[in-house]
Order: sequence, then C-alpha cells, then structure tokens
Amino acid sequence: MQFPKPLLTLIEQLRKLPGVGLKSAERLAFSLIDWDEKSLTDFASAISSLPSQIESCCTCGAWKDQVECRFCAVQRRSHQLCVVASPKDIYLFEQTGAYKGAYHVLGGVLSPILNQTPPKERLSTLKERIQADHIEELILALDSTLEGDATALYLKKELADFQVSLTRLALGLPMGTSLDYIDEGTLARALSGRLQV
Amino acid sequence: MQFPKPLLTLIEQLRKLPGVGLKSAERLAFSLIDWDEKSLTDFASAISSLPSQIESCCTCGAWKDQVECRFCAVQRRSHQLCVVASPKDIYLFEQTGAYKGAYHVLGGVLSPILNQTPPKERLSTLKERIQADHIEELILALDSTLEGDATALYLKKELADFQVSLTRLALGLPMGTSLDYIDEGTLARALSGRLQV
Repeated sequence: MQFPKPLLTLIEQLRKLPGVGLKSAERLAFSLIDWDEKSLTDFASAISSLPSQIESCCTCGAWKDQVECRFCAVQRRSHQLCVVASPKDIYLFEQTGAYKGAYHVLGGVLSPILNQTPPKERLSTLKERIQADHIEELILALDSTLEGDATALYLKKELADFQVSLTRLALGLPMGTSLDYIDEGTLARALSGRLQV
Repeated sequence: MQFPKPLLTLIEQLRKLPGVGLKSAERLAFSLIDWDEKSLTDFASAISSLPSQIESCCTCGAWKDQVECRFCAVQRRSHQLCVVASPKDIYLFEQTGAYKGAYHVLGGVLSPILNQTPPKERLSTLKERIQADHIEELILALDSTLEGDATALYLKKELADFQVSLTRLALGLPMGTSLDYIDEGTLARALSGRLQV
C-alpha cells in the first residue's frame, strides 16, 4: 500500500482495536482525515488522558474517576458480593437494576488453555473483604464458558476455608428467543432447571 | 449509563466514527482502557498529528506527506486524467495496477438531493490542467449511483468548451459473482455492453 506515512501509522493503530481489520481501519482513518483539527485534538486527548484519569478502586477493582469509588459506598454494603471478571461487567449488572450491592473484580479468569489464573492480589483482597464485611454469598457472575466454569471451581477450592456460599448465574433460555435457535446444552440445562408456572 | 466521565467522553468520540454505534464504541473504549500508556500516547498522536502531517496536493488534490506529490510526478503525466471524487479513491485504482497516469480529485460529487456541487476551485484547477497538460481523455472514475451519474453530466456540461473526451467506468457483472445475485439494472447493462468471446 502506498498511503502517506502518517495515514499508515494511524491505520496500524486502529487495527489494534478489537474487531477492526485492515479494511475497517482504512475506512475509519479516511473518515478521521475529514475531521477538523479541534475534533481530532479532542479525540486524541480523550485517548491519551485515559491512564491519568481512570484508576481502579483498590478494594473492588472497578474503574473510578473520583476519590471515592461509588461501588464501595457504605449504602451498597451488604452480605453479598457480585464477583465479575472485568470492570466492564459491572455496568452490565448495573443496567439490569436487579442488583444493588457491591462488586468484586477478579481482573481475569482461570484459563486452563492459556494456563492463566486471576491475579493473586485480587484474590487476597476478596478474602479480606469476605472476612471484614461478613460476606455470606458470593454471586459468581462469570461467562457460561469453559473459563467461567473453571474459574468458579478455582474459587470454590481457594475459598474452601471460608463460611461463604458461592452461587452462579442461572443457565437457561435467553429472553425472547425461539427454541429453534437454542443449542442442546442450554436446552438440557433449561429443562433441568425448569420453573413452576 | 454510569461510566466514569473520561470513559463517557471517549465513547462519545468513538461514536463519531463511521459504522460505530453505542455498543461498538463501548467495546472499543473498554479495549483502550487495557492498553498501556505508551500505546495510548502513540495512538493519540497518530490522530492529532493528522492535520499537520497530511496535506492535499494543490494540483491533483491527493493526500501527500512530502513536499512533492507522487501522483503529480513527471513520469506519471500523460494525456489522460483519472477523475475521482475523494482522495481515498486514488488508492483503489493504484491497487489494480491497471492505471499508471495522473489523477484529479473533485473533492465531492454533485448531489441533486443535497443540492451540492463539487468545490468550484477543484473544477477550475481541472480546467487549467486540461489545457496545460493537453489532456485528451478524462476517465470519470465515479460511483455508479445517482450522484455519480449526475456528476458525470455536470462535468460534461461544464467542460463542453474543451476538446476532451469524457469516459466512465464500464457497467456489468462484478468478477466472481453468480447471476442470482445481480439486480436487473446491472444485468441489462451487462447485456447491452456484452463482449466478444
């Protein structure tokens, strides 16, 4: 390709984004060329200021832009903790409005394939919180994948000495789906976990 | 949504990119949060440095990062000019390897719906080039859309006083397509423009 060098650099950078291939990156770069200088500067500063403006809460691991983490606020404390793999997952549960308690970010899952475990310090913070806040239930809000299952088992083993109940998200039909599009595994779980009408 | 403010700002900026909706912008932003500071700075500077590093050639209108425009180089001059709507279209033709001559960027098309015409100064530069370079053929490399057709007619009218032949790209089947997927209009043009085997 014979694009001018600065354009090539931008295309390379854009390709590092998830789901952005060469063609998409080119399309995004072509569009950015038409932006005015002010818009480009604003965009660039929104990107480069991320590390200085967003920190992780050292207790729950959520992203925070203020001194106090709003997910660790006193009124959110209860005897439940919702354990998520990544800070972004918190917002999925917040959007449901179905959970009002505190969270704990694991910062990763156990992957038998990649031979990875969640970071040790997030696990020890979790142990400290279980004791300090008298947590009775950990809601393991993990993907229903191999890694999610492995992480749940790993936590069960790691927390064997604690008086805490571990629960996972229900498996079954997504709302508004036709049975035609459900795989056998999900259907089997939906059947065994059937609900009284 | 209750994302931290800097994250919201970034998501808003990302949504301005073509084909990026709210969900995609969130996904891109979540991924950027995981980049290290150096990568973010590089990305931001690739964006913000665009206006200072990429100029348009005042003759052909292509993007250039050096003093001399490589599409206006002496060895590219011939009695043909390939007229494109936008600088990015040049690279599509360069990739084919089927055209080795010079280009002229119109900087826009005539849109009867939006009541727009290509910028006047690009048209007057085109007229100057036709005379100065003794251009005999203008290849109108425009979209086969309403706007492309209207622009071709507009150029024909504007250049009526010049001894220059105007040609357009052939209409017909895209390579490697099944007839099942071709619309009637294209099929009719492919039929009338049929080629000797």
